[in-house]
Amino acid sequence: MSTNITKIGVFTSGGDSPGMNAAIRAVVRTCAYHNKQCVAIHRGYQGMIEGDFEEMNARSVKAIINRGGTILRSARSLEFKTPEGRAKAYNNLKENEIDALVAIGGDGTFTGAMIFSEEYDIPIIGIPGTIDNDIKGTTYTLGYDTALNTVVDAIDKIRDTASSHDRLFFIEVMGRDVGHIALNTGIGAGAEEILIPEENLGLDRLLESLEKSRRSGKTSSIVIVAEGDNIGKNVFELKDYVNEHLPFYDVRVSVLGHMQRGGSPTCFDRVLASRMGVKAVESILDGKSGFMVGLLQDKMCLTPLEQAVKGHTEIDRELLRVSDIMSV
Amino acid sequence: MSTNITKIGVFTSGGDSPGMNAAIRAVVRTCAYHNKQCVAIHRGYQGMIEGDFEEMNARSVKAIINRGGTILRSARSLEFKTPEGRAKAYNNLKENEIDALVAIGGDGTFTGAMIFSEEYDIPIIGIPGTIDNDIKGTTYTLGYDTALNTVVDAIDKIRDTASSHDRLFFIEVMGRDVGHIALNTGIGAGAEEILIPEENLGLDRLLESLEKSRRSGKTSSIVIVAEGDNIGKNVFELKDYVNEHLPFYDVRVSVLGHMQRGGSPTCFDRVLASRMGVKAVESILDGKSGFMVGLLQDKMCLTPLEQAVKGHTEIDRELLRVSDIMSV
Amino acid sequence: MSTNITKIGVFTSGGDSPGMNAAIRAVVRTCAYHNKQCVAIHRGYQGMIEGDFEEMNARSVKAIINRGGTILRSARSLEFKTPEGRAKAYNNLKENEIDALVAIGGDGTFTGAMIFSEEYDIPIIGIPGTIDNDIKGTTYTLGYDTALNTVVDAIDKIRDTASSHDRLFFIEVMGRDVGHIALNTGIGAGAEEILIPEENLGLDRLLESLEKSRRSGKTSSIVIVAEGDNIGKNVFELKDYVNEHLPFYDVRVSVLGHMQRGGSPTCFDRVLASRMGVKAVESILDGKSGFMVGLLQDKMCLTPLEQAVKGHTEIDRELLRVSDIMSV
Amino acid sequence: MSTNITKIGVFTSGGDSPGMNAAIRAVVRTCAYHNKQCVAIHRGYQGMIEGDFEEMNARSVKAIINRGGTILRSARSLEFKTPEGRAKAYNNLKENEIDALVAIGGDGTFTGAMIFSEEYDIPIIGIPGTIDNDIKGTTYTLGYDTALNTVVDAIDKIRDTASSHDRLFFIEVMGRDVGHIALNTGIGAGAEEILIPEENLGLDRLLESLEKSRRSGKTSSIVIVAEGDNIGKNVFELKDYVNEHLPFYDVRVSVLGHMQRGGSPTCFDRVLASRMGVKAVESILDGKSGFMVGLLQDKMCLTPLEQAVKGHTEIDRELLRVSDIMSV
Repeated sequence: MSTNITKIGVFTSGGDSPGMNAAIRAVVRTCAYHNKQCVAIHRGYQGMIEGDFEEMNARSVKAIINRGGTILRSARSLEFKTPEGRAKAYNNLKENEIDALVAIGGDGTFTGAMIFSEEYDIPIIGIPGTIDNDIKGTTYTLGYDTALNTVVDAIDKIRDTASSHDRLFFIEVMGRDVGHIALNTGIGAGAEEILIPEENLGLDRLLESLEKSRRSGKTSSIVIVAEGDNIGKNVFELKDYVNEHLPFYDVRVSVLGHMQRGGSPTCFDRVLASRMGVKAVESILDGKSGFMVGLLQDKMCLTPLEQAVKGHTEIDRELLRVSDIMSV
Repeated sequence: MSTNITKIGVFTSGGDSPGMNAAIRAVVRTCAYHNKQCVAIHRGYQGMIEGDFEEMNARSVKAIINRGGTILRSARSLEFKTPEGRAKAYNNLKENEIDALVAIGGDGTFTGAMIFSEEYDIPIIGIPGTIDNDIKGTTYTLGYDTALNTVVDAIDKIRDTASSHDRLFFIEVMGRDVGHIALNTGIGAGAEEILIPEENLGLDRLLESLEKSRRSGKTSSIVIVAEGDNIGKNVFELKDYVNEHLPFYDVRVSVLGHMQRGGSPTCFDRVLASRMGVKAVESILDGKSGFMVGLLQDKMCLTPLEQAVKGHTEIDRELLRVSDIMSV
Repeated sequence: MSTNITKIGVFTSGGDSPGMNAAIRAVVRTCAYHNKQCVAIHRGYQGMIEGDFEEMNARSVKAIINRGGTILRSARSLEFKTPEGRAKAYNNLKENEIDALVAIGGDGTFTGAMIFSEEYDIPIIGIPGTIDNDIKGTTYTLGYDTALNTVVDAIDKIRDTASSHDRLFFIEVMGRDVGHIALNTGIGAGAEEILIPEENLGLDRLLESLEKSRRSGKTSSIVIVAEGDNIGKNVFELKDYVNEHLPFYDVRVSVLGHMQRGGSPTCFDRVLASRMGVKAVESILDGKSGFMVGLLQDKMCLTPLEQAVKGHTEIDRELLRVSDIMSV
Repeated sequence: MSTNITKIGVFTSGGDSPGMNAAIRAVVRTCAYHNKQCVAIHRGYQGMIEGDFEEMNARSVKAIINRGGTILRSARSLEFKTPEGRAKAYNNLKENEIDALVAIGGDGTFTGAMIFSEEYDIPIIGIPGTIDNDIKGTTYTLGYDTALNTVVDAIDKIRDTASSHDRLFFIEVMGRDVGHIALNTGIGAGAEEILIPEENLGLDRLLESLEKSRRSGKTSSIVIVAEGDNIGKNVFELKDYVNEHLPFYDVRVSVLGHMQRGGSPTCFDRVLASRMGVKAVESILDGKSGFMVGLLQDKMCLTPLEQAVKGHTEIDRELLRVSDIMSV
C-alpha cells in the first residue's frame, strides 16, 4: 500500500442519513489499523474552509455506531462554490498536513469533491450516504435500509387506525427523483397503490383501482405517494380529488416528513457503513482517487464519481409487478 | 354478584387507540370467567343498529393483546343520534338477549351511552379509550402511554437530523383541547419550548426564548406544538413567523399525524386495559350502571359518566415548570 | 431557598437502569437554573474516593436524555465500606467544595448514603434508579417502565414462535426479591401463569393449570418466572419437571437476562427522571437531607432514606386476580 | 403459462421465521391474480397427512404481512418419514385436487419435498424460510434480515449496561452450522471478537485479543458467540475460562435464545417474501418443479432443491477482516 499518505480527513456533507456515524467510525478505525492519522472535519465543506478540524483516534468514535445523524454535522457552504472558498479549504488541509479525503454524502457532496480534486491534487474517495438510494454505482446507499424500516413501522401504525375506521390514506414518503422508498415500503406495508416519479399511473387508473379495491371487499386502503410522484398532485390534492370522485371513501392524509432521515441504523446499514469505510481508506492507501465505494452484487466496488452523480439507480420493474399482484 | 345478567355486549366507538383490543379481550375473558356470555358488537353504535353481532368466547380474543387498532372496528353513526336509531339498536340488543353493555371509547361514546341508558333500561359501563388523555375520572386513558412513546420515538429521530444540521423544528402532535401529549413528550424528548392549549406563551416570549437558546450555545432546537395550541398559529404559520424574525434559524416543520393513534400497546396500556376490562364487567355484575372505570391514585375506580365527559383532566402545572428548568 | 449551597455533586451507583442519564441531565440543569455549580462524580463511591470529578454545565448533558445506561458509569466500592475510604471520599468532596450530593441508585446506594451522611455533615438526596421497582416510597423507580416494555417486546417475539409450534415456554425475567416485572409483563404479554417470589403457587397447581389450559384448546403457553420465584425451581428445572409430568408439551426455556437493564428510556421514565432531578436539587436547596424523592399518587414526595431501604413496595394483589381471570 | 394447474397448496414447515406470513400472503394472492385456487395446509407435513386443509382467497391473508411466526403453524412429522405417511399425504392432496405445492421452510423441509416429489408426481417449489441464512441458492433467506436487527437491538441494550459497569459480555446468538448471524451482528453491534463455526480463533488468541483490548483503553467488551462456535466451549465455559485467566474482567453471559426467531419482519424480509411468493407460484404455472426460489445478485432465481440442501452459503471472508479492523 501507498506509504506517502500519512493523514486522512473525513467529513459528512448534504442531508444526513443513518449509518453516517458508523461510516465515520469505520474510516477512523481503518486509519488507526494502518497506522495512519485521521482528522475529522466538522460541518462539511464549510468546516474545511473554516479549519474546523479535530484529531481522531480509535477511541474517539466509540459508542456511535448505533446513533443516527452525524457527529461531524453537516452544513451548506455557498463559499465552497467559489474558487476563493476552495483555495482557503485547500490551504487549511495543507497546513494540517491532510493528504487525502473521505467524503460521506450524496450527489451534491460528490460534485463538490470532483471539482475540488480536479483543481487541487488531493485524493478523494466518496461514501454514498443518503436515504433516497438515488446514486449510481451502489445497490444500497447508507441509510436507505433504515429509512425503509422507519417508513414501514409508521405505515403499520397508520394501518391500525385505517382498518379500525374503514379509511383511505394517502401517505407521502421521501423520494423527490426516485421511487425506491415508495415502491419498497409500499410492498412492505401492503399498500394498494404506489405513486412514484418513474411511472405515471394516471388519475383515472387510480380511481379505477380504488373502486375495484372497494368492490373486492377491502374496507380500508393505503396509497403510498413519493414526494416527486409523476401524477401532478400532492397528497392533499389527491385527497380532494378522490373525495370528489369517490365520496364513499373517508380519505385522510399523512406526510411522514423528516423522521425518515433519523433513527438508529439497521444492522444492514451498520455493516455496509463498516465495509464502505474500510474500502474507502484502503482505496486511498492504494493510490486511488475520484471514486465512490459502493455495493454491487454483494461486493464492495469502486465507481468513478463522475458516473455516480449522473442519474439514478433505476427501480426494479419486477417490483412494480409484485406490487400489482399483491393488491389483487 | 348479580345473577340476572347473562349476556354482555362490548363495542368500541370513536377514534381508535392502542389498548382497545386488550380491553376487548379482558371483557370477553372476564365474562367467560364468571360464566357469562359475551357478544361483540362491530362498528360501534352503527353496528348495534344494524345487528352486526358476534358471539365471543375466551379463545376468540387470543393473540390480540399486542395489536393496535380495534378488531371490532369503529364507525360514526348519525342514525344513533335519532330516537328511531336508538330504538332499533335497543330492539337488536333485546332480540339477542344482551342484558348490559361495555362501551370502549371517548367522550362522544359516553355521551351516546348516557342518552341510551336513560331512554332504555340497559346497564352500561364505559372504558376510556383515547390517546388524548382528555377524560375526567382517570389519570390515564387507554392508549395515552403508547402514544407518548410513539411521539417521543419520532422526535428522537427528528432530533438526529436537527442536530446534524443546526435546525429549528416545529413538531405538531395530537391534542386539540388538552396539552398532555405535548407537555409530556416535550419534556421526554428534551424540547426547548412546548406550546399547549392551556397556556398562552405568546409569540414574543417564544422568539425571546429561541434567541436565548441560540445565545446559550444550542445549535438546534425542537418546539412541540399541540394541535390546539393557544398561540393562534399552526406549525406552518409559526415557521413563517420565525423565519421572518429570526432569520439565522433554518426552520423546518413536521406534523406527526395519524401514526400517533396506532401501534402495539405498551405494557402499561395492556395492563391498564386488562384491569379496566375486569372492573367494567364485574361492576355490571355488581349491579352498577352509568359509570366509567378509571385509574385514580393507582387504583381502579368508578366515576359517573356524566362527570367523565365534563371537561378534561387538567395538566400538571409542575410539569410546565420542569419543562422550563430543563430548557435552561 | 438555601444560599449556603453553591456546588452539588451527582453520581450513579449500583446496577444501571434506563433513565439514569435523564436524571443526571435534570440534576445538572436544575443546578444551572438556580445558578449553582454541578460536579459529576464518575464511577459512584469509588470515583468519590479517587477524586474522579468533572465540572458540568447545562450543555454537558445534551443528547443524553434518550440514552440507556449511565454516562457517569457505576462501580462497586469495597473501599467505601471502610471508614478510611469514606474519609478519603469526604476529603475529596471538601477539597472540591462540593456542598451536597444527589445519589442515583438502589438500596445499596442509599444505605451507603445514609452511613456517609451520618458520619459527615453533607446533605444527600437519593433518586431511585433500578428496574426492579423494589424501593419503598415511590410507586415507580427509574427504569422500571422501560424494563416492562423491553420484556413485553421480547415475549411478544417468543410468542410468535411458541404459537407457530404449539410450545410451552418458561421465560425468566428479572426480580430477585419482588415480582413486579414478572406480574406486569405476565399480564401484558398474556402469560398463562406467573411465578413470583411473593406467592407460592406450588408445583401441583402449576401442572393442573397447564393441563387445564391445554384442555381448554390453547395450543401454546407462556409461563413467566421471576428470578426469585418461590416455587424452588429455576426455569431449567421447571422444564425438566414439566417434561416428566406433562410429556405432551414441547417445553422450551428462555432467560431474558441483561438486556432488560438497557435501552432508550420510555417517555414515562424520561419525564419521571426529569421530575425527580428537579425535586432532588430543590430539596437540597431547601435544606433537606437524608431523603429519597419518589412518585406517590402521581405527585413528587420525599421519603426518609431509612424507610426507603426497608423492605419493598408490595405487589398489587388485584393484579394477581386480573392475571388469573385473563388466563381463563 | 401452464393451464393444467388449477389448485396450489401452501405450507410452512420446520423452524418458523419472520416473513413466513408475508410469503404465505404472496402465494395466496399470486394464485388469486392468476385465477388459480389456493389451499393452505396447516402444520406442515403432519397436516398434509391429517388433511388439515383450508381454502384461501385474497382476503384470507389480510393483515398478516407484518406478523411474525406462521399462521399455518409448523410441526414435526415422524409419520411423513415413512412411505405410509407420504402415501396418506398424497391421497389427501389428490382428494382435494391439489395439483402442486409451495413449501416454505429450511433444509429439512426441502429434503422432505424432494423425496415426496420423486415418489409422487406433484410439482413442488420451495421458499427458503429460516433465520440462519444457511441455504445455498439465495443470498438471503426469509427472516435472516429481521433476526439480524433483533439481535443488534438486544446487544445495543446489553452494551448500555456493559459500558456502565466496565464489563465483558459473552453473548450467544443463533447459528449452529453457520456464523452469518454472529458475524454480521458482531460487526453491527461493534463487538470486540466474534466466534463462529467456520473459524477457529483459538483460546489463546481470544485471551490475547481481550488483553490488548483492555490495554488499548477499552473498559467494556462484547464477544459474540455463535451457538455452533468452533472453539469447543459454550458461553458459560468461556466465562469461567476468562475469569480464570483474566481476573481483572467482570465477565457476564447472555444467551439471546428464541426471541431471535420472532418479531414483525423488516421491510427487506417483507419485500423478499412477496417476490419469492410470486416467483414460486409463477414457476409452478410455468411447469417447473423441484426448485427453490432465491435471491442471487439482487434477482429472483431458481436453484434445484438438491443443490439448495447441500451445504451452506459461505460467510464472506471480507467481513472477518472488517471485524478485525473495526476492533482495532
